[in-house]
Amino acid sequence: MQEQKVLINGERLRKTIEKFAHFGRTDHNGVTRLSLSAEDVEARDYLVSCCKAIGMSIKIDDVANLYATMEGLEDRPPLVMGSHLDSVKKGGRFDGVLGVLAALEVARTLHDHHIKPKIPFTLVDFTNEEGARFDPAMMCSGIITGKFKKSEMLQSSDSEGVTFGEALTASGYEGDAANRLQEATAYLEMHIEQGPVLESENLEIGVVEGVVGMVNYEIEVTGESDHAGTTPMYMRKDALFAANDVISALREKLSHLDRELVYTIGRMVVTPNIHTVIPDRVVFTLEARHKDPEVIAQVVQAINDLPEQLEGCTVRTRKLWGRNTVQFDRNLCDQLECSAQGLGYSYKKMYSGAGHDAQYIAEYMPTTMIFVPSIHGKSHCEEECTSYEDCIKGVNVALDTVLSILNGH
Amino acid sequence: MQEQKVLINGERLRKTIEKFAHFGRTDHNGVTRLSLSAEDVEARDYLVSCCKAIGMSIKIDDVANLYATMEGLEDRPPLVMGSHLDSVKKGGRFDGVLGVLAALEVARTLHDHHIKPKIPFTLVDFTNEEGARFDPAMMCSGIITGKFKKSEMLQSSDSEGVTFGEALTASGYEGDAANRLQEATAYLEMHIEQGPVLESENLEIGVVEGVVGMVNYEIEVTGESDHAGTTPMYMRKDALFAANDVISALREKLSHLDRELVYTIGRMVVTPNIHTVIPDRVVFTLEARHKDPEVIAQVVQAINDLPEQLEGCTVRTRKLWGRNTVQFDRNLCDQLECSAQGLGYSYKKMYSGAGHDAQYIAEYMPTTMIFVPSIHGKSHCEEECTSYEDCIKGVNVALDTVLSILNGH
Repeated sequence: MQEQKVLINGERLRKTIEKFAHFGRTDHNGVTRLSLSAEDVEARDYLVSCCKAIGMSIKIDDVANLYATMEGLEDRPPLVMGSHLDSVKKGGRFDGVLGVLAALEVARTLHDHHIKPKIPFTLVDFTNEEGARFDPAMMCSGIITGKFKKSEMLQSSDSEGVTFGEALTASGYEGDAANRLQEATAYLEMHIEQGPVLESENLEIGVVEGVVGMVNYEIEVTGESDHAGTTPMYMRKDALFAANDVISALREKLSHLDRELVYTIGRMVVTPNIHTVIPDRVVFTLEARHKDPEVIAQVVQAINDLPEQLEGCTVRTRKLWGRNTVQFDRNLCDQLECSAQGLGYSYKKMYSGAGHDAQYIAEYMPTTMIFVPSIHGKSHCEEECTSYEDCIKGVNVALDTVLSILNGH
Repeated sequence: MQEQKVLINGERLRKTIEKFAHFGRTDHNGVTRLSLSAEDVEARDYLVSCCKAIGMSIKIDDVANLYATMEGLEDRPPLVMGSHLDSVKKGGRFDGVLGVLAALEVARTLHDHHIKPKIPFTLVDFTNEEGARFDPAMMCSGIITGKFKKSEMLQSSDSEGVTFGEALTASGYEGDAANRLQEATAYLEMHIEQGPVLESENLEIGVVEGVVGMVNYEIEVTGESDHAGTTPMYMRKDALFAANDVISALREKLSHLDRELVYTIGRMVVTPNIHTVIPDRVVFTLEARHKDPEVIAQVVQAINDLPEQLEGCTVRTRKLWGRNTVQFDRNLCDQLECSAQGLGYSYKKMYSGAGHDAQYIAEYMPTTMIFVPSIHGKSHCEEECTSYEDCIKGVNVALDTVLSILNGH
C-alpha cells in the first residue's frame, strides 16, 4: 500500500508570497526592501505574527537574525530552515523571501496536520544577506559564523551615512547574542536559482551540492595619453588597444578550460575617456567561478601568465578577493533527491554560482539548498519571477525532506 | 655675394613667450587661459599695448577676433599671421600663443629694421580656438568663414552657465562685424606640432600641407545583463566580450590600411559596470584621420561591414561627425620650404592631425602653417614644451616667408 504524502497548501503559499510582495513594492511589481528599513521591519513584524499564530516562539539575536521555533518532542538541536527577507534596490519578489516563506509554509503544514515534530523546527530570517544597504553581502550569517567581526560590521554605513549599528538599534530587532544559531541538526535553504539552467533544461528542482569557489582580479593596463590626431600608430602606447589584446588572450585561454567555468569582465574604466585622446589607463575586473579549485587555479595561472609589458603598455594584476568552493552535506542532498523522486518532480544536482547564507552555515552544521527555476534566469531586478507552481513543488520537496529528518530517516 | 638674411630677435621672443606664460599661469608651469576670461583679457590687453608700441593699429570684430595692422605701402589685402591666445584648462605655454607671438616678433623685426611693408601686415588673435570654455573649437574663425551661425554660438555656455554672448560683452572686446577678416594676400599660422613626428625624426620645421580629414563614429553593442555567477557561458549575451571582438575586427582591418592612418577608441562606457554582472551595453567611439579621403572611405567601409549581430548581441554604428581634408596653398608651402632651406634648417612636409583656425581660413585665402617640434609630442597639458631654439627657428622661417611675400616673390 502506497503511503499518502503530506503536501503543503499551495494556495496559501501563493497568497503569502503575494502578501510579502507588498512590503516595499515598487512600481513594476518588484520590491525594494533594504535590510532593517521600514519595509523590512514591516515584513518582519508580519512574519512574527504569522509564526506566533501557529504557536512558534520568537528569538532575536544581537544582529537581528530572527528565529521562530516550533517545539520538538525531544530537546535536541533544531532542524533549521530559512533565508532572508531583505532585497536589493528594485529587486524581485522571490529572492530570499521565498526561502523564509517556504519555512513558514512547512511549519504551517505541520501545524495543519497536528504533527508535533520529534526535534524542534526553526525558521530563520538572516539580516542583510544582500549587502545592498550595508556592505558586505551575507553579513549576519557571516557574523555568527565568525567570517566578519561584529565591531567592524556595526560601522558599515549605507548611502545616507547611517551605520548598521544605528539601523540595528532603530529597528527594534536588536536581540541577544545568546540567541545566535549555534547548533542544528540540519540547515535547509530554498532559493530561486538566479540562473537559467533549470528553465533551459526544463527541470523543476535543483538539488544544490555546494557553492562554487571564485576569484576576482583587477587588471590595470597603463600606457600613455597622447593626441589622437597627431600621434602615429607606431609611436602610441594605447592602453585600450593593449587591454583589448589582454582580454582576447584571457578569453582564448579560459575558453579551453572546463565548460562549467564562468568568467566575467563586469567592470571596465577607461581614462581619460575623451574621444580625441589616446587612453593612458584601462582598469577592468575579471571574476571566475567553478566548483573545482583546480580549474580556478588554472584561471589564476592564465592571469599570472599575462605579459608585464604589451604594446608599450604595462600590465598589472591584483587579486581583489576569492572564496573556496563550499561543499554541502551529501546525506542531505541524497535526501532531497529522494524527496524529489518520490514526488515525481524532475531535478538535477547542481552547484550554486551565487553566494548564499547557507555557504557560511555549512561549515558548522549539515546544510543544503533547494533551487527552483528562475524565469529567463533573471534576479535582482523587478522582472525576477518563478512560477507559483514551481514554488509549490520546491516547498513540497522541502517539506518531504523535513518530515524525513524529523522522523529520523 | 650672399645676401645677408634679416633675422628675428630670439632673446626678445623668448622673453615675450615667458611674459605671456604669466597670464593664467598654473602651479606646474602651464596656463589656464580660457577664452574671454580675465586671464585672456589681460593677455589681449598686453598684446594690444605691444602692437601699439610699434605703430600697429587695432581693430576688433563682432566676435572679439583681434587684428593689429602695420600699414603697407600699397592699399592691398594684408598678409595675415596669427593664431589664438586662449588655452585649455591646465594647458601649455605654447599652443596658440606661440603663433600670435611669432606674428608680433615678425612685426617687431620689420619695425627694428625700418622695413615698411609693401602690403599691410596684420597680426590676428582668433577668439575661442580651443573650445575649452565654449563649445565648439575654432568657434570664431568658424563664424567669420560661415561654418557656424553666430546667433547659435552666442548661446553656447560655459560650465558656469555664462553664454559666449555674455562673456563677449563683459570682455570689452566686442567689436564691429565690419572689421571681420575678409580678404588677405595670405594667411600664415605658426603652431607647435602637438605630435612626436618632428622630434622623433630630429627635424626643426614642419611645412604643413593641410589638415587631415577625419570621421568619428559611435559604436554601440547591446547584449543582456545577467548574474555573473549563475549564467553558463554558452547562454550569455555579453556586450563587453562582443565589443572586444568588434574592436579586434576593426583593428585587424584598419591595421592593413595606409600606414599614415591614425585611429583611436578614446571613449568607452560599460553598463552597468558592476563586477558581478554581465555587461548589457558597451558604447565606444572610433575616430580615424587621414589626408586621403579614399583611406577614410575604407575606414567607413570597415565600420559598415561590421555584423549587425555578434555573439547574441546587437551592433549599431552611428556617424557622429566628420570633416574633409583641407589642402593648404601649394605656393605658400613651396615658399616655406625655400625659407627653411635658405636658413639651413631641417624640415619635412607634413599634414596636421589636429584642427586649427587655418583650416577654416584656407577656404577663402591662400593659407599655410609652420610647425615646430613638441617635446615628447605633448600638448594640452602643463608639460607641453618646445625649445626656445626651435621657436626661434620657426619664427625665422615665418619672417623669411613674410619678407618674400612682402617683396612680391
